[in-house]
Amino acid sequence: MKIGLDIMGGDFAPKATVLGAIEAYKVLQGHTIVLIGDKDAAISILSEQNFSPDNFEFVHTTEVIGMGEHPTKAVVQKPDSSISVGFKLLKEGAIQAFSSAGNTGAMLVGSVFSVKTIPGILRPAITTIVPKVKGGMGILLDVGANADVKPEVLVQFGVLGSLMAQNVYGIENPRVALMNIGEEEEKGNMLCLATYPLLKEASNINFIGNAEGRDLFGDHADVFVCDGYTGNIILKLAESFYVITRKKGFKDEFFDRFNYERYGGSPILGVNAPVIVGHGISNPEAIKNMVLLSKDMVESDLVGKITRAFQ
Amino acid sequence: MKIGLDIMGGDFAPKATVLGAIEAYKVLQGHTIVLIGDKDAAISILSEQNFSPDNFEFVHTTEVIGMGEHPTKAVVQKPDSSISVGFKLLKEGAIQAFSSAGNTGAMLVGSVFSVKTIPGILRPAITTIVPKVKGGMGILLDVGANADVKPEVLVQFGVLGSLMAQNVYGIENPRVALMNIGEEEEKGNMLCLATYPLLKEASNINFIGNAEGRDLFGDHADVFVCDGYTGNIILKLAESFYVITRKKGFKDEFFDRFNYERYGGSPILGVNAPVIVGHGISNPEAIKNMVLLSKDMVESDLVGKITRAFQ
Repeated sequence: MKIGLDIMGGDFAPKATVLGAIEAYKVLQGHTIVLIGDKDAAISILSEQNFSPDNFEFVHTTEVIGMGEHPTKAVVQKPDSSISVGFKLLKEGAIQAFSSAGNTGAMLVGSVFSVKTIPGILRPAITTIVPKVKGGMGILLDVGANADVKPEVLVQFGVLGSLMAQNVYGIENPRVALMNIGEEEEKGNMLCLATYPLLKEASNINFIGNAEGRDLFGDHADVFVCDGYTGNIILKLAESFYVITRKKGFKDEFFDRFNYERYGGSPILGVNAPVIVGHGISNPEAIKNMVLLSKDMVESDLVGKITRAFQ
Repeated sequence: MKIGLDIMGGDFAPKATVLGAIEAYKVLQGHTIVLIGDKDAAISILSEQNFSPDNFEFVHTTEVIGMGEHPTKAVVQKPDSSISVGFKLLKEGAIQAFSSAGNTGAMLVGSVFSVKTIPGILRPAITTIVPKVKGGMGILLDVGANADVKPEVLVQFGVLGSLMAQNVYGIENPRVALMNIGEEEEKGNMLCLATYPLLKEASNINFIGNAEGRDLFGDHADVFVCDGYTGNIILKLAESFYVITRKKGFKDEFFDRFNYERYGGSPILGVNAPVIVGHGISNPEAIKNMVLLSKDMVESDLVGKITRAFQ
């Protein structure tokens, strides 16, 4: 397996990304990490670490898409950027997964333009991990790919999240909940009111009803679906709470599981290859785990399973 | 001033409400608390506490609207419920404010049916307090009165929240932010995209742009506006986080300020009288503070100021 990593993506690239690649190399066996980006910079960091460049493959690129750049414009205008090249390699099958802690929008645009959406999928979604107080975790999607969605899209998110929970996180028969503002079917905004009956009818997911904001960290459900506007606000709010507990010196096993570093990144589900977007502030630990999550996504054949589910 | 309190509202009523009324009486000077509900039950609790019933006025009612009842049906079918009678007294001017820790929907329906929406206001909103890490607090609205809103409604929420922040919480020139998923004007869902230019044009508020989920507890803004679906999810998520920190024994001045007991309840803004909805699990401390917040709302003439702002 060849796992592509954008070494130019993220606030601390290429240092953090190359160091993360070294850490990933140490635990990955029989797989190759392909470092995509400024090869000279990478070699220089590797030599500082006395780590042989022969442990990696390199694809040199000359451009970088900045965090603040307009995604579509950037992907089109910078064909030799690490993100654009990464997706080219992914499309050609030269790598089996691609991840980057760079511009999220560019990663989304790249996914949809190059490897393309899986037939039958209306909109890809970005997922995130939600730790449970009692241990284990759930999945929340969408956290930002689609600010507005239709009811049918939310139902698909339920399927995508279930397949991810089952195949990558080993959660059997994952319970799917609709993020809402009341337990009852007749509660919610127009989107939820229209979505609930569709989720109830969906035979390929284990829909258990609505979840409220307070249910997210409990053992209420395994997959929480919502539009990307709501999910993104939830994600950033939860993250800020974690940051506050850390700043205040509260160390705790539950709060530690909020740490994005542990999970490495947020998979984009619904496209024809494993793609992961990392947090902009990714450190080497986060990068390492992003590469390992890439491997898990390839090994579990998540994309194949999603493709068959939507045939 | 006569402050009406529904003594039948909340999970621990009438005990918690009557005990809370006693605590409020001790700090309120020259004002009367009108206890609305089962007078015999109240008298019995008061005598247990050796507290003279002469310190209160009573309006006896024979019905109670349960927490799970359908709001509109309940208000119509239970004219002698404490909530229905409370609104009747409020409408007649027999009390100057009304609060209840009971059925939120019934409180909303009662507000709109009896004292009615202030002319010019499209939709009333329920507000909540958002503590800031560095001290002080902000206001978030709507947290559940309107699951779906139009852009014009969000602009009005900005005005309502600003007047509340200024007049009740003493925040000068409150900064208004739109809850969104990016800093830039062109970020967000369709609702936010349509709302941003209207907020920018509004001359009667100090609009400072978008706020993300991570900005809520910082010093980014004083008033955060969003639809009631989003606000309700934010509120319940933040509350659950507070509960988790408490269960884990993390005591901290910032987290303590999440404690709803301190604020007593969530005002319904945009109706022709001060109305406050308390948390269902309100204890005596919360009830006391709900009564004191009622007094502050009356004394600051918040309703008069809102009325003039929308003339």
